[in-house]
Amino acid sequence: MAEKFDYDMVVIGGGPGGQKAAIQAAKLRKRVALVDVNPFIGGVCLHDGTIPSKSFREAILHLSGFRERFHYGKAYRVKQNVQMNDLTNRCRGIVNDIEQTIRSQMLRNHVDLVKGFGSIVDANHVRVTDENHERTLSTEFVVIGTGTRPRRPPGFQFDETTILDSDNILHMSQLPSTLTVVGGGVIGSEYGSMFAALDVKVTIVEAQDSILGFLDREIVENLVYKLRDLKATIITNDKVVSCGTCPDGRAVTYLESGKRIVSEKLLVSAGRVCNIEGLNLDVVSVEHDERGRIKVNEHYQTTCPNIYAVGDIIGFPALAATSLEQGRRASCHAFGLRDSSPDMPLPFGIFTVPEIGMVGKTEQQLSAEHVPYEVGVARFSEIEKGKIIGDDTGFLKIIFHRNTLEILGVHIIGHEATELVHIGQIVMGSQRTGGVEFLANNIFNYPSLAQAYKVAALDGLNKVIATQDLPDEVPKAEYDDNLN
Amino acid sequence: MAEKFDYDMVVIGGGPGGQKAAIQAAKLRKRVALVDVNPFIGGVCLHDGTIPSKSFREAILHLSGFRERFHYGKAYRVKQNVQMNDLTNRCRGIVNDIEQTIRSQMLRNHVDLVKGFGSIVDANHVRVTDENHERTLSTEFVVIGTGTRPRRPPGFQFDETTILDSDNILHMSQLPSTLTVVGGGVIGSEYGSMFAALDVKVTIVEAQDSILGFLDREIVENLVYKLRDLKATIITNDKVVSCGTCPDGRAVTYLESGKRIVSEKLLVSAGRVCNIEGLNLDVVSVEHDERGRIKVNEHYQTTCPNIYAVGDIIGFPALAATSLEQGRRASCHAFGLRDSSPDMPLPFGIFTVPEIGMVGKTEQQLSAEHVPYEVGVARFSEIEKGKIIGDDTGFLKIIFHRNTLEILGVHIIGHEATELVHIGQIVMGSQRTGGVEFLANNIFNYPSLAQAYKVAALDGLNKVIATQDLPDEVPKAEYDDNLN
Repeated sequence: MAEKFDYDMVVIGGGPGGQKAAIQAAKLRKRVALVDVNPFIGGVCLHDGTIPSKSFREAILHLSGFRERFHYGKAYRVKQNVQMNDLTNRCRGIVNDIEQTIRSQMLRNHVDLVKGFGSIVDANHVRVTDENHERTLSTEFVVIGTGTRPRRPPGFQFDETTILDSDNILHMSQLPSTLTVVGGGVIGSEYGSMFAALDVKVTIVEAQDSILGFLDREIVENLVYKLRDLKATIITNDKVVSCGTCPDGRAVTYLESGKRIVSEKLLVSAGRVCNIEGLNLDVVSVEHDERGRIKVNEHYQTTCPNIYAVGDIIGFPALAATSLEQGRRASCHAFGLRDSSPDMPLPFGIFTVPEIGMVGKTEQQLSAEHVPYEVGVARFSEIEKGKIIGDDTGFLKIIFHRNTLEILGVHIIGHEATELVHIGQIVMGSQRTGGVEFLANNIFNYPSLAQAYKVAALDGLNKVIATQDLPDEVPKAEYDDNLN
Repeated sequence: MAEKFDYDMVVIGGGPGGQKAAIQAAKLRKRVALVDVNPFIGGVCLHDGTIPSKSFREAILHLSGFRERFHYGKAYRVKQNVQMNDLTNRCRGIVNDIEQTIRSQMLRNHVDLVKGFGSIVDANHVRVTDENHERTLSTEFVVIGTGTRPRRPPGFQFDETTILDSDNILHMSQLPSTLTVVGGGVIGSEYGSMFAALDVKVTIVEAQDSILGFLDREIVENLVYKLRDLKATIITNDKVVSCGTCPDGRAVTYLESGKRIVSEKLLVSAGRVCNIEGLNLDVVSVEHDERGRIKVNEHYQTTCPNIYAVGDIIGFPALAATSLEQGRRASCHAFGLRDSSPDMPLPFGIFTVPEIGMVGKTEQQLSAEHVPYEVGVARFSEIEKGKIIGDDTGFLKIIFHRNTLEILGVHIIGHEATELVHIGQIVMGSQRTGGVEFLANNIFNYPSLAQAYKVAALDGLNKVIATQDLPDEVPKAEYDDNLN
């Protein structure tokens, strides 16, 4: 059957989703082409997004001495006068290395790498345009993983030197002494906290009433406390109206409230837009919403059944972690492999300084849903490993149902939070009831931060025991509605 | 009932097991006394063992620049000429801080701290002797958690300056330029690798054919490779006959093979012995074996039912992690609380440089048991987080049953291995079959080291798929016994 096409699958876009779709198809001995407009594969994740920013962060954590300040004092630095070069040189090496790893994996699995801009001709043909050259590939299946780019809202004169988006913030040649960050979402908060750890005076402006508003409130409050400790300013409930540059070259940001913020550099992180322009989705009736997000079913099939879409282009959660798995599952589905989809809660990793891990619901969500939850907390400053590494502000909280003891959410801020969250995620996915008791009884290495799960679970269970003799019904007579 | 005794529970020994027994009893509103011969509570774990050595290790990892050498080169050091003081000052602060935390937890929970040497008078009386003072406490239950001390084999002239055991190695005033370590068990390998990371020329002598022989062979080989890279020498299959000091004050170690090793310092880590002397176990018929290990049942009851024993004094596994839980469970059992004992595999954390995490069985064990296992491997150098942090030699391997896909063992060496191993432990404890498929389908944060579980699981499953069409029976005709 397949022989009537050049390829069994053509993937447009070489980010995490596209890569894993291609590799999975190749492992099934399918003929695959991976089309990418860039000379280097890896997508925005590798070249302008996740990987450079996390490499930058790791370099900051080391050179700033941030992690060691509890033991050696607030003024401790591993390197004085850290320069932008000290940080980005390291990033470049990592990005090149990962690119080589991806490329060699593709070659080893006989995936054809095709450079050029891919667009749909019809359901079985993809046109690839590269400078003056153009070719058309016939294929049984198409996977679209063209991703997103930073949104550039009107009123901002992006100039690549003073007014920047998240794609070019790491191209700065010098570290600024002051930085304004517009937007306190994930990207804005991550970069804001990283530069703050480098002694840059950071101001984050967020239109909502909290940065990272989807996180548990207690976690955000802890992060905000740490940010202020690093001399950052956080302005919430205020909108940016416009911005410009002063005669001396600095940026001015004008807020709705009338405030003006002057800073050497301005980072605008105001969401991302989908790369669907030029794909010719209309010719195959692939539906998308007004923001460009392609509509897919649970198998990542678009409204044209032999065309799949994966990654940021299909919207929430738009994480590399999920894109990888979406790509793999799309390929499995296309080639008839059983799609065992475990009903696992999705972990979130926020690479702020300090980092944050989250899975499940927040206290705020559960209260709104009238779920009778209880909370167990372990502070890193009270467990041995926390003291050893000097993490004096991190903590882990487990939210669980006080009757079934099912874990409803785990929220962590501090050292290795993005790794530790998976322990909670796996218990949530495996132990539908009694999860918190399971953790309380488990044995964790000593000393370890994972032990925080046991400490938090015991803390939570003790609270349940302390209140279990209370009557189940609210004693109505004692309450007066007027008191609220 | 309880009123006829001074206390509901008297705990002898303030290490991890004794502490948690005391706290659990106090949480149940019992009257508890914790007897410890030392002016500071915490036991050997806090004062001479686990905590100082892990604090020392963390200081080494930072000041040596060990973790950053992949990015900045082999010669990279955060601090040149690291001195013993640079490392031990930090340890002292951590130990004091943890001691304060334990003490305040005891006081908050109204546990009476009694200084003195505790011994058994009869099943309900404990004598406490402190200098010239002596008193007797009556109690319903007794918990013995007196722990162990380093074994000092005959033929070694321990002098606290040149020939040392693990209790006084950290009291050295200067870093030696050469160090011989007798015994390649956990303690010997941990200290050996730490000093090697500090550029001390280390020689480890082990009588068996491998250091850390209970670990998976591939993990040990990786560690040995790293140790040699740090200029360490590892001598196996050779016994130490005796040792002495040269006229210039250095130590000489004589081996059975005739080899002589001269080094500035000598660390003897030749096992540990139980602290049962003077406890008067005979008067209450508490049984123990010839090595002093007290015999207990699954509830940690000794042969005298109201006397419990927990921690290193009862033998394997003799880890702080298990002692904590044993103490808690002993208390729960004494006071009639349901002892829900989840059938969880025990994690092991080895704090060598690099660190090691293990749960379940090794390839060697499974081969000996004729279990048809398959292995999936993820190298940290091939996953993004590994490259970002510069861990180029770490890896994670999952051993699973090729038919049931049950996970039989997880072995990790590298960054945060002692934390990461819990992910495997919890899957093993929760998913009796199909565990490896569960991990392959799960979504892990990106970038994270936890992702190694997914990569390894996919690697292993691909191997199963690649060989699943083979006949189940071994085609006998093709084999000739003589070939073996």
